[in-house]
Amino acid sequence: MSADSTPPPAMDGLTISDAVPEAEFSKRVLIKSILGRPDKGAGLAGRKVRIGGWVKTGREAEKGTLAFLQVNDGSSPENLQVLVKSEVYNASHVVATGTCVHVEGLLQTPPETATQQKIELQVTSVIAVGTVDAAKYPLPKSKARLPLELLRDVVHLRPRTNIISAIARIRNALAYATHTFFQNHGFLYIHTPIITTSDCEGAGEMFQVTTLINDAEKLEKEFKECPPPSEADLKDAELAVKDKGEAVAQLKSAKASKEEIVAAVSELTKAKENFAKLDERRKLGDRLRLSGGIPKQDGKIDYTEDFFARQAFLTVSGQLQVETYACALSSVYTFGPTFRAENSHTSRHLAEFWMVEPEIAFADIQDDMNCAEAYVRFLCQWLLDHCYDDMEFMTKHVDKTALQRLEMVAKSKFHRITYTEAVAILEEAAKKKKFENKVEWGIDLASEHERYLTEEKFKAPVIVYNYPKAIKAFYMKVNEDNKTVAAMDVLVPKVGELIGGSQREENYETLQKRILDMGLPLEPYQWYLDLRRYGTVEHSGFGLGFERMILFATGVDNIRDVIPFPRYPGRADL
Amino acid sequence: MSADSTPPPAMDGLTISDAVPEAEFSKRVLIKSILGRPDKGAGLAGRKVRIGGWVKTGREAEKGTLAFLQVNDGSSPENLQVLVKSEVYNASHVVATGTCVHVEGLLQTPPETATQQKIELQVTSVIAVGTVDAAKYPLPKSKARLPLELLRDVVHLRPRTNIISAIARIRNALAYATHTFFQNHGFLYIHTPIITTSDCEGAGEMFQVTTLINDAEKLEKEFKECPPPSEADLKDAELAVKDKGEAVAQLKSAKASKEEIVAAVSELTKAKENFAKLDERRKLGDRLRLSGGIPKQDGKIDYTEDFFARQAFLTVSGQLQVETYACALSSVYTFGPTFRAENSHTSRHLAEFWMVEPEIAFADIQDDMNCAEAYVRFLCQWLLDHCYDDMEFMTKHVDKTALQRLEMVAKSKFHRITYTEAVAILEEAAKKKKFENKVEWGIDLASEHERYLTEEKFKAPVIVYNYPKAIKAFYMKVNEDNKTVAAMDVLVPKVGELIGGSQREENYETLQKRILDMGLPLEPYQWYLDLRRYGTVEHSGFGLGFERMILFATGVDNIRDVIPFPRYPGRADL
Repeated sequence: MSADSTPPPAMDGLTISDAVPEAEFSKRVLIKSILGRPDKGAGLAGRKVRIGGWVKTGREAEKGTLAFLQVNDGSSPENLQVLVKSEVYNASHVVATGTCVHVEGLLQTPPETATQQKIELQVTSVIAVGTVDAAKYPLPKSKARLPLELLRDVVHLRPRTNIISAIARIRNALAYATHTFFQNHGFLYIHTPIITTSDCEGAGEMFQVTTLINDAEKLEKEFKECPPPSEADLKDAELAVKDKGEAVAQLKSAKASKEEIVAAVSELTKAKENFAKLDERRKLGDRLRLSGGIPKQDGKIDYTEDFFARQAFLTVSGQLQVETYACALSSVYTFGPTFRAENSHTSRHLAEFWMVEPEIAFADIQDDMNCAEAYVRFLCQWLLDHCYDDMEFMTKHVDKTALQRLEMVAKSKFHRITYTEAVAILEEAAKKKKFENKVEWGIDLASEHERYLTEEKFKAPVIVYNYPKAIKAFYMKVNEDNKTVAAMDVLVPKVGELIGGSQREENYETLQKRILDMGLPLEPYQWYLDLRRYGTVEHSGFGLGFERMILFATGVDNIRDVIPFPRYPGRADL
Repeated sequence: MSADSTPPPAMDGLTISDAVPEAEFSKRVLIKSILGRPDKGAGLAGRKVRIGGWVKTGREAEKGTLAFLQVNDGSSPENLQVLVKSEVYNASHVVATGTCVHVEGLLQTPPETATQQKIELQVTSVIAVGTVDAAKYPLPKSKARLPLELLRDVVHLRPRTNIISAIARIRNALAYATHTFFQNHGFLYIHTPIITTSDCEGAGEMFQVTTLINDAEKLEKEFKECPPPSEADLKDAELAVKDKGEAVAQLKSAKASKEEIVAAVSELTKAKENFAKLDERRKLGDRLRLSGGIPKQDGKIDYTEDFFARQAFLTVSGQLQVETYACALSSVYTFGPTFRAENSHTSRHLAEFWMVEPEIAFADIQDDMNCAEAYVRFLCQWLLDHCYDDMEFMTKHVDKTALQRLEMVAKSKFHRITYTEAVAILEEAAKKKKFENKVEWGIDLASEHERYLTEEKFKAPVIVYNYPKAIKAFYMKVNEDNKTVAAMDVLVPKVGELIGGSQREENYETLQKRILDMGLPLEPYQWYLDLRRYGTVEHSGFGLGFERMILFATGVDNIRDVIPFPRYPGRADL
């Protein structure tokens, strides 16, 4: 394969960019710009283009003098049919699934008999080929799709499959739609920290971020090369200090010359330094022996020696931090990775996942629900407008109801019921239907309850709000009944809870009391209390689990398949 | 402060949203939608609006019967002048800097004498006030700006200052401009992993992510409550196994009844289980004693017991992982947090920072430079189009040349010189000018060299490409001279290196040899080599340090002031 850095030649007065919009910054047009046109590319017959992509399926025809290739470059789910004659390139070298082809050719109308394609590419020259040994390629040509579980073992190659690339395009669209929605409504994107010294929920299932283990390993390595001083070494060094000290004293009492005394003092200083150095190494040696090299103080790990001089974690939510910006810049949001060190092996949990968390000043729980509803409906409409072809693919191959669900949510006004109303509905339902978890006022709704409400009772998105105080976090605003808090969850068919949010407690005294009532220490939350101490403001926000939204949109069952590089107990490939 | 969830009342047939575009999802209009109009709001006189914000400065007038407030809500650098008469609210309760006011009123033309404002708000009712004890507020009213260093100690309140809020809006604009640029050019946004088991550069300055320490602490706590078994306990348990075993043997040889034998075997099983349990706890006790609770095997930490069953780190770059998507979906980019555990205390380094990393298939180093140049110029033009008021603020208060620099870069074609040419220029310059670092072919350019090229020699952005192979990473494409690699750096005035990129080595054999030549192990890079083994493709990419771009745009000196929550040695507040 060789580089070609000269600009593409003009042909019949037409450069490539005259023909179809060229993918800038690379020497090919995106296949989407050919097949994604309303006429499916038919009107481009006669134009010369360069394309690049990977062979999905290829076959030799006419006794090996012609290769028929279905080529995909990831820009859309559709393949371009590419023909390579043997006078241009050896057909047998390009037909293997996974082969990369970078070619120039003439777009032409296929023969009448080929009904599927409206346009195909007759290759006139091959710029480069990246071959594949079909016998070794982990994603063989096959009519039967490889199961998604097996694709997780080739996480670096799975984006070459139709399904993972469709999910990647849908994920990309949802991310840009998220930014567009909030920017259009005057929200500012704030990067909340990944490494944190606050524990938002007080839940404790956090990953620790540290350099102590690395430091300990360095220490161990160093001591292997240069062992700690022996008892005898230390004793000798201590004696030397004593001797040199006595020498100085003697010289002084003997009224020796200044030079002699200075020389002796210098010797003493050296001896002291030597002892201090050995003693320091002895202490490090003790540390290595007693705690594997981890610094300890009073039996506890001494985090003052860690990188941030205190214990640090990966964030579980950017909410508390983004509130500091909402209480200054009014409408803000964060969109970034969050982490849970839960030993959870379900199809709904990841150790690393992305969250969207808007936070709005001068907004109560009603405003919060308005925002959540508008956002989710915007996302659904965006996919219908920008990813219809990928959604058709998902509907055909993964979940028959995927497109229908998007259309329903984009159009529906969300039902809104209080938690108390939800429990009444579920109690009524429990008379005819068996739930695994008992329903009564005060429980946290289980997934089966949430899905009953949205999938069976309302057959539409539902927002449940005003949850019991006892089951919710300290920062949620206590309602006037003093039994419930102004929290809300958005429930949607297929995944249940998609969004959780609340109005935040803006009253300083109430918030402080809630922290103490929950048995949490006040000190780590002083900065959070400051937001109420100084110029407090009514504010609200929510969090949307980004992967949950993709599960909802695509109908895929396992969350490990909708994030490019899934992390879960025992696995963090690449 | 109390919530008001009823919709704003209609006044004279005008609702708030008739008057000026309302900030949806909250009960106020953004001040920007009043002052950001071409007429600075003058045309809105007579309209009724609700606004919310924080008092920048306030003063009582006319013997305390009137409060004059400058109110800011973070939507723009400009304050709205707000008047509160004492019959509406106690003036002395709203004038303290930092007070939050949520008010409704009538927009009116200020008297002729007030020349600065074109519009002001006469408050008719106060919805809520969040008070401030001026004596305690860490951001006092003051003509003199608090130094940025001091603001770092109140990272949760500093977004309320003019400068940090302006930086936040510029940062937001650059983030959305980044997504818009790449989306407009057909790139897909890929979320590369934060937790990784690959070390991209082989540099080793990585944070470790672990649950081992937490597990060790749990173990320690548990053993304090329930100590490990003593030697005697273990001996007893072992003896019990022996006894029960003998009992079974006796019964068998005595041909006892089946029931009797079954009962004895059951006793034996129990004794064995008890011993195994005690022995397990003894081992955990040993672990606690010998290595502070960290599991070890052959003297090394046993990472099979860590969360991901292997050693895991925070990513230093998403490049290698995003290449897996480029080699399937053609044009992709990642934009996320990256980490370095360097003990670096400079004004240019953070332990946590954000990077933008596009990766393009079918693209060589020239395409890469084209993309980098177009992207940087797009960012500059975007700020001129969308953040001119904030840029004026930065130009006035921080860096006189900030706006001029943006305009220059937005318009300039970037100079492109090879590394060899750059060295020749620097050698020539060194005849007249003193550099701290010696210039000769083969060195890595120092910051002083880079800044000379862009600030003095060309007075414009410069791209230097084709660097010596020996100083660059293993994945960069080796040029035909076998001395240089197809790497490029974009240098800009004020910050020096803004972007680093390269064409990637797409040849399997060459890449494998480079990994080995650099003394790196092959095994961790097998997945990366697979991208060349199967359908390899010419591809290129680069990384832009997002905070560097903000430093460049704003003229701020210290990187700790352009990220909301700076992380550096010894500090990770919140």
